[in-house]
Amino acid sequence: MPSYTAPTKDMQFILHDVLKVTASSIPGYDELEADFTGAVLEEAGKLTSQVLAPLNAVGDKEGCVLENGVVRTPAGFKAAFDQVREGGWPALDMPEQYGGQNMPSVLGTAVSEMFSASAMAFTMYHGLTHGAASAILAHGTDVQKDTYLPKMLTCDWTGTMNLTEPHCGTDLGLMRTKAVPQDDGTFLVTGQKIFISSGDHDMSDNIVHLVLAKIPGGPDGIKGVSLFIVPKYNINDDGSVGSGNGVSVGMLEEKMGIHGNSTCVMNFDEARGTLLGEEHKGMRAMFTMMNEARIGVGMQGLAQASAAYQYALEYAKDRLQGRAVTGTENPDGPADPLIVHPDIRRSLMDQKSFIEGARAFLYWGSNLLDQAHRSGDKDADGLVSLMTPVIKGFVTDQGFDMTVQAQQVFGGHGYIEETGASQFVRDARIAMIYEGANGVQALDLVGRKLASGGGKPIMAFFDIVKSFIKENADNEAIKTDFLDPLKDASKHLQAAAMYFMANGMKNPNHALSGSTDFMHLFGHVALGLMWARMGKAASDALAAGASDAAFYETKLATGRYYMARRLPATALHLARIETGADTVMALDAEQF
Amino acid sequence: MPSYTAPTKDMQFILHDVLKVTASSIPGYDELEADFTGAVLEEAGKLTSQVLAPLNAVGDKEGCVLENGVVRTPAGFKAAFDQVREGGWPALDMPEQYGGQNMPSVLGTAVSEMFSASAMAFTMYHGLTHGAASAILAHGTDVQKDTYLPKMLTCDWTGTMNLTEPHCGTDLGLMRTKAVPQDDGTFLVTGQKIFISSGDHDMSDNIVHLVLAKIPGGPDGIKGVSLFIVPKYNINDDGSVGSGNGVSVGMLEEKMGIHGNSTCVMNFDEARGTLLGEEHKGMRAMFTMMNEARIGVGMQGLAQASAAYQYALEYAKDRLQGRAVTGTENPDGPADPLIVHPDIRRSLMDQKSFIEGARAFLYWGSNLLDQAHRSGDKDADGLVSLMTPVIKGFVTDQGFDMTVQAQQVFGGHGYIEETGASQFVRDARIAMIYEGANGVQALDLVGRKLASGGGKPIMAFFDIVKSFIKENADNEAIKTDFLDPLKDASKHLQAAAMYFMANGMKNPNHALSGSTDFMHLFGHVALGLMWARMGKAASDALAAGASDAAFYETKLATGRYYMARRLPATALHLARIETGADTVMALDAEQF
Repeated sequence: MPSYTAPTKDMQFILHDVLKVTASSIPGYDELEADFTGAVLEEAGKLTSQVLAPLNAVGDKEGCVLENGVVRTPAGFKAAFDQVREGGWPALDMPEQYGGQNMPSVLGTAVSEMFSASAMAFTMYHGLTHGAASAILAHGTDVQKDTYLPKMLTCDWTGTMNLTEPHCGTDLGLMRTKAVPQDDGTFLVTGQKIFISSGDHDMSDNIVHLVLAKIPGGPDGIKGVSLFIVPKYNINDDGSVGSGNGVSVGMLEEKMGIHGNSTCVMNFDEARGTLLGEEHKGMRAMFTMMNEARIGVGMQGLAQASAAYQYALEYAKDRLQGRAVTGTENPDGPADPLIVHPDIRRSLMDQKSFIEGARAFLYWGSNLLDQAHRSGDKDADGLVSLMTPVIKGFVTDQGFDMTVQAQQVFGGHGYIEETGASQFVRDARIAMIYEGANGVQALDLVGRKLASGGGKPIMAFFDIVKSFIKENADNEAIKTDFLDPLKDASKHLQAAAMYFMANGMKNPNHALSGSTDFMHLFGHVALGLMWARMGKAASDALAAGASDAAFYETKLATGRYYMARRLPATALHLARIETGADTVMALDAEQF
Repeated sequence: MPSYTAPTKDMQFILHDVLKVTASSIPGYDELEADFTGAVLEEAGKLTSQVLAPLNAVGDKEGCVLENGVVRTPAGFKAAFDQVREGGWPALDMPEQYGGQNMPSVLGTAVSEMFSASAMAFTMYHGLTHGAASAILAHGTDVQKDTYLPKMLTCDWTGTMNLTEPHCGTDLGLMRTKAVPQDDGTFLVTGQKIFISSGDHDMSDNIVHLVLAKIPGGPDGIKGVSLFIVPKYNINDDGSVGSGNGVSVGMLEEKMGIHGNSTCVMNFDEARGTLLGEEHKGMRAMFTMMNEARIGVGMQGLAQASAAYQYALEYAKDRLQGRAVTGTENPDGPADPLIVHPDIRRSLMDQKSFIEGARAFLYWGSNLLDQAHRSGDKDADGLVSLMTPVIKGFVTDQGFDMTVQAQQVFGGHGYIEETGASQFVRDARIAMIYEGANGVQALDLVGRKLASGGGKPIMAFFDIVKSFIKENADNEAIKTDFLDPLKDASKHLQAAAMYFMANGMKNPNHALSGSTDFMHLFGHVALGLMWARMGKAASDALAAGASDAAFYETKLATGRYYMARRLPATALHLARIETGADTVMALDAEQF
């Protein structure tokens, strides 16, 4: 089986050559010199490639087992989890006050890419803990923060999110789980939740469940939903782990992938919990961490594509099959390596140009999150909110497609589990579904985000594109290959937004029928912008006589591929959008 | 779990309203009245939906087990296999002389769709037997035919194809398996073959392996490859099954899907075989049945999409989640069904319009095969040869994408194995790989088929499109919605072919870098043609006052969707093709 190597040089290129993170004026950023981030990335790279990557296939093959009510994780998970905890990795970008390292989220995102690429199912145990801790950090009382955060930041206690019920996922207003208030201010939570990632396992002393539930007598529907902290074991007054709470695992789901993560049916039977945030404002509490969580899932799409690409590339270089049509390239061997064949190249370039573009997009998004959270930059907040459904939906859709392309490079060997290519496909598939299925992301984008703030965020995005093109209008190194295609693509995005404005008022279906196409159109323009910025950074470095010219030349060539062969998809998405709802909604349900 | 229902009405529509199979002058077709084909399809529909469909998930879950050197199939397979054999289904379109029913391949194809849709892994046991029997029929001596065919047509003996070895799949010239001639005219075959579908199992009395091997001293490479019949058990002079041959199962592969089919590593150790066809002409013998086999795999792509769509549709109608944005459609329920939401509609229409278009394309291809084989029509032969890689590559790529879309409709429930949505994705995935990976199909199309016969077949295809548009120029029912888009798309295909002609001579990479795009461009134009023909058939039926107007209106609406929202992909494929090889081949291998 091929192996995973953390692409730290590519990551450094984005952090420093493109985003120039040290030049930004965000509190905490002054320590982000290239030497420092390089050291962090190298350390994370070693841990993930040497310790975690070998566990990925083990987790897939063994899966989790429910024994006597407790989930047993695959062999080796616990030891590796301890190593991750001891390294302080789960709380890299968490406040020092509770034991974190206070680094910005953009660096946390880069590190999380390696974790997810090397062992996605494993990484979810501490990834979800990070999410739950963020919710407590944002909405908890001081007592809740002091009780839970120090333990969660070390992953002595892990966390989960409990939203979905058997009859409702997207439409959480239908929720049936009840939380009955007690005289002591606590609540007794009763109900069933499904699809709970990391719902139970044997790697921590306690599990902190964040549970959405309704307080009887509250408003109907989504407006009556509150969020609760429900630990697996009650917490004693001294903060130690006490008696069992009314929380049990109903069953483990059998899934297409991420077998190493325990996806549980969780039963709450008068389980004692405390309210997190305000009564009936549970959705708001969930949503404040949604941008972070959705960018995290977008990262999973990218990470799986990146790891799968590395496997495919190694195979394409090693496997001898056929001869180059333009003349033998390996005359001493029985055949040429796969990588000489144009259609294999096409596939590898599709993958490479997507991965590097999406990486820049994700890091940019995280950088905007930092600006929003640490500097209170409202414009950054609006922009990242707008782009979050694109990051989640576009990157996971495309990331999945890229794992399929990577698998295809292996031919028949990609279909058998031995090579690992299938696992990337099966694991990547979930990222299109959870944390809001991609159709819901598209709906959020077109139905909500596009018009949010009076359209200011989308105008800000267009301004960024326009300004970049204008500022670099005389830059011959990127004008024809990067700026011109970006301009065309950006016009398609504007035309699509105009179409929605002109037709969506008459009939919202005219907008919503094009929502998925719009999400992809936006994603391509965003990656086009990223590639233009990377093209400029690379050509600047070359002009400045950078020692590693080959690295920057490769960036330019990869970017040219994206602009020439991937970006033109924007015209197709626009063409589809402009057909509106007529053909989409033509049939009655019974005509299908 | 939802269920599968054979879409016999849609099938009849293609056979009779569109292809008008009884009106063609092919020997054997005179018995193909709608009553007759309807009865056959209904019977097959009953068997597949009632007996086979319930086994599909069983096969996936249990898989095959290798015990004491013999493969045990999942529970229920043997009984169902007996029922299929007793119904005569495996030899529907085989000659009566050997026990077949002599029906045309187009009807066999329609029936095979149901088999594959209901239980793909199961169906491969007799599907591969059909393929092996076809090879013996085409190239066997009278003794070989008399010995093997009667047993194979009843599936008392099943068949396999043994091509791939660990170090070579596409590039079979590297093959190492040897066949050493003996004094009695037989050969002793020694070597290892991998990925052998149905390689061993417990449902037949013997297994007839067709094995590619090299006779020592023959030409190097692919020109020295011959084909052999190597039975698992030797055949006695009286035709009965005798002693064991030197054939054994090395191991069963663990695969992403089709778990119900035994994918074996086969070891041949001085196994006795007889030459099939001429010495060193093994590839030619394999290729004569390649069109049939590749159309069969294309059918698997369609069939999985079709079954997955049925599941998704049932879920979309049943699952209540959210409210229609244009006003509640299920006021008495807690929410509206998923199918009211535009993005769910878009997905279902993508699936439906692909499935029905691809079905027409596949049946048309089989109809051409009948014309080629039964009437010796050289033009039909050229046309179906040209389109075979499109049928295989385009339909399996798109079919897989459609299973992914179907799975997405289920949200989180699509990711757990319980609903069956994941299995369609995992099973469909193999169709893009085996029988020539889709990149190889694209290479075959652009590198060989496009210029074959001096370009006569591709010109014939363009003539069919042009004539159809011309003949129906005054048909207002289809002009704007069907003919105009078809004309545009067809121009894109012509422009792409022109680009290859103008640039491929200078540098073949300019053509091969666009091969996959060309295959998809061709596929879309072919489906556009199919929809135009179906649109005409439907509007003719309506004009003639057909009693089932709703059926034909639905066809027209579904076709309009394809033409408006799917067919415009041709422009994108052309745009990519016209960028040539420059960005695709820009990097050296070590720059990746």
